[in-house]
Amino acid sequence: MHSPFDARIDACRRRLETVGAELLVCFPSPNLTYLTGFVESPSERHFLLFVPRDGAPTLVAPTMYDSQLEALELPDVRLWDDETDPLELVADVLGTALPAGGDGSTVLLDDRMWTTFNHDLRGLAPDAEFGLAGDVLEDLRLRKDEPELAALRRAGAIADRVSLAIRARGEDVLGTTEAELASEIDSLLASEGGAEPAFETIVAAGPNGVRPHHHPGDREIERGDPIVLDFGAFVEADLEAGTARYPGDQTRTIVVGEPPAEYERVHEVVCEAQRAAVDAVEPGVEAGEIDRVARSVIEEAGYGDAFVHRTGHGVGLEVHEPPYITAGNDRELKPGMVFSVEPGIYLEDRFGVRIEDLVVVTDEGCERLNDSPRGWESGEDVDRSQ
Amino acid sequence: MHSPFDARIDACRRRLETVGAELLVCFPSPNLTYLTGFVESPSERHFLLFVPRDGAPTLVAPTMYDSQLEALELPDVRLWDDETDPLELVADVLGTALPAGGDGSTVLLDDRMWTTFNHDLRGLAPDAEFGLAGDVLEDLRLRKDEPELAALRRAGAIADRVSLAIRARGEDVLGTTEAELASEIDSLLASEGGAEPAFETIVAAGPNGVRPHHHPGDREIERGDPIVLDFGAFVEADLEAGTARYPGDQTRTIVVGEPPAEYERVHEVVCEAQRAAVDAVEPGVEAGEIDRVARSVIEEAGYGDAFVHRTGHGVGLEVHEPPYITAGNDRELKPGMVFSVEPGIYLEDRFGVRIEDLVVVTDEGCERLNDSPRGWESGEDVDRSQ
Repeated sequence: MHSPFDARIDACRRRLETVGAELLVCFPSPNLTYLTGFVESPSERHFLLFVPRDGAPTLVAPTMYDSQLEALELPDVRLWDDETDPLELVADVLGTALPAGGDGSTVLLDDRMWTTFNHDLRGLAPDAEFGLAGDVLEDLRLRKDEPELAALRRAGAIADRVSLAIRARGEDVLGTTEAELASEIDSLLASEGGAEPAFETIVAAGPNGVRPHHHPGDREIERGDPIVLDFGAFVEADLEAGTARYPGDQTRTIVVGEPPAEYERVHEVVCEAQRAAVDAVEPGVEAGEIDRVARSVIEEAGYGDAFVHRTGHGVGLEVHEPPYITAGNDRELKPGMVFSVEPGIYLEDRFGVRIEDLVVVTDEGCERLNDSPRGWESGEDVDRSQ
Repeated sequence: MHSPFDARIDACRRRLETVGAELLVCFPSPNLTYLTGFVESPSERHFLLFVPRDGAPTLVAPTMYDSQLEALELPDVRLWDDETDPLELVADVLGTALPAGGDGSTVLLDDRMWTTFNHDLRGLAPDAEFGLAGDVLEDLRLRKDEPELAALRRAGAIADRVSLAIRARGEDVLGTTEAELASEIDSLLASEGGAEPAFETIVAAGPNGVRPHHHPGDREIERGDPIVLDFGAFVEADLEAGTARYPGDQTRTIVVGEPPAEYERVHEVVCEAQRAAVDAVEPGVEAGEIDRVARSVIEEAGYGDAFVHRTGHGVGLEVHEPPYITAGNDRELKPGMVFSVEPGIYLEDRFGVRIEDLVVVTDEGCERLNDSPRGWESGEDVDRSQ
């Protein structure tokens, strides 16, 4: 197995030691991808990764994956076919990792493991205690390693370039429907090197902007419409073996022509809230504090009730994952955590404004993964100072 | 809640009585769709259906589904939002359905429930026994009710019409790539009323036909190529409330022009195996017997080693589900079961032949859900007798 997976498995085993667990079992999920670089959908077929505290990891998988798994160079792969009972292979692995019946030992199961496999494992180790793999893997996955950060930076740069390109279109977007512009953004994301959109691209014009998760529709973009543009593409991480993809996620709100009344002030408040929140990011600060900083700027400006969602969410193998930047979240920020900072103000029947960048926590503060202009003016010659 | 869901919930509760369980809990899965007509993807949000042996079912779901759930007219929906702890709602439901701590009671959990929810429920009912919901729902889902059979018949008719249309193209398919023909089949399935392909359409020409799950590629179809065509579309069931979709799944193997040496004999053997297996379907027969009948025709013709897969699989809310028509499966066939009968012969480096229809077990035998011609000749004027 190639780096970074060796390092991740080692870190996982050290944490098993810390929490006093003997074995961790992954099912096809982002956890499995994190530890092996293998991307697979859950199914009724036994596909299980066993990471014992002591000893090498073992993968039990159907024979049909043989050639795909070879590339990963996993140290111990046990394949089963129609003539093998996969449960016998599983029992064998448990027999090596645990005392008979699992007596006195703790086994951590993938948070997304199907109950049918959960119950199989409980049946094979009736005297073990069972817990959740997330209890050791979440902390690891929260702090991105270099291959992950490199992928997230590339995803950020792709979103930046597409953002600039859309802004540069200026008056050309007038008369385009939201859905057409969203489709154009998707094409640009692909031509800039994105694998596919990381989520449904949001183009929300005028009053549609008040819905944070608006589905782009047939509304034509008009002069003076604030347009919320929220998008990003997955990129493949550059790994020696295995695959994994990481998303971009950026939001800008732009206007072609003169914006509506009150818009400029609202836009400036959201920019200021976002800037203040990003400035507050540093190791040791609680996630909830970042939410508080963003929210207080907006509250002080008199728009507190119009900021209807959390300030941000972590990104990594999943587009939404911890840390969640929500009120009261006492999780302490640490170097390598990556999350969005995306305050917004939504004025019913009028318009919405949201500005979002991804940031990575560094030793001394944070680094923005997006750096396209944040102002509202559309056209070739935009103010890059905000 | 409208029929057929009332009847399915009632049947589920009668089975809980039979197996001596107090409560069944579904997670977003085909089981949940079967019992409610609600289609939802698994996620970290608490979305759980509780079916107690005594008393009405309760759904715990996020507030954002409010309007969608209203249409289902479920008797007891408890919604949670950011300010509610969904676990409190769950604890409340368990408190009504079970004695304190779950002592002495049995709870059946959805086979696909994520372990994180499984462990939550175990924590709330530490003294209960836990089993699998499949133990009561599988038998119910195996025997299709009228709305399900109506949808499966429509899906079968759509596949038949597309099969006829492709066969009628005769020489027109020459020079087309497998991928182009697959894409044309997908368009035809849609224009005939299919919701979307039920699985990746298989077009496998010449030697590519030896791979039962070949991905259509850029091989151009040539005169004399046996072409394995395996496809079907989902159709929406016609329900008063809720949604559910059922697949078509049909395979034909055709040739434009003169087939290669030995082909006609192989095609006839596969046809005969399929006919004999379908003729053997009736209530009381074991699933394994259908496999044995198909296999013995092929073995007697000397092609036993070239029939490399099971004879068939059940279809319903899932494209592959029980009953599996495999060697030794002692499951007894009963009226209302629907499955594929699809023997094949695969001659390495030369060609493959597979013929597949869906059948439903009736009181006296079975009904084919597909009835397009099974012969190999392509063109307008085809032999419908096989």
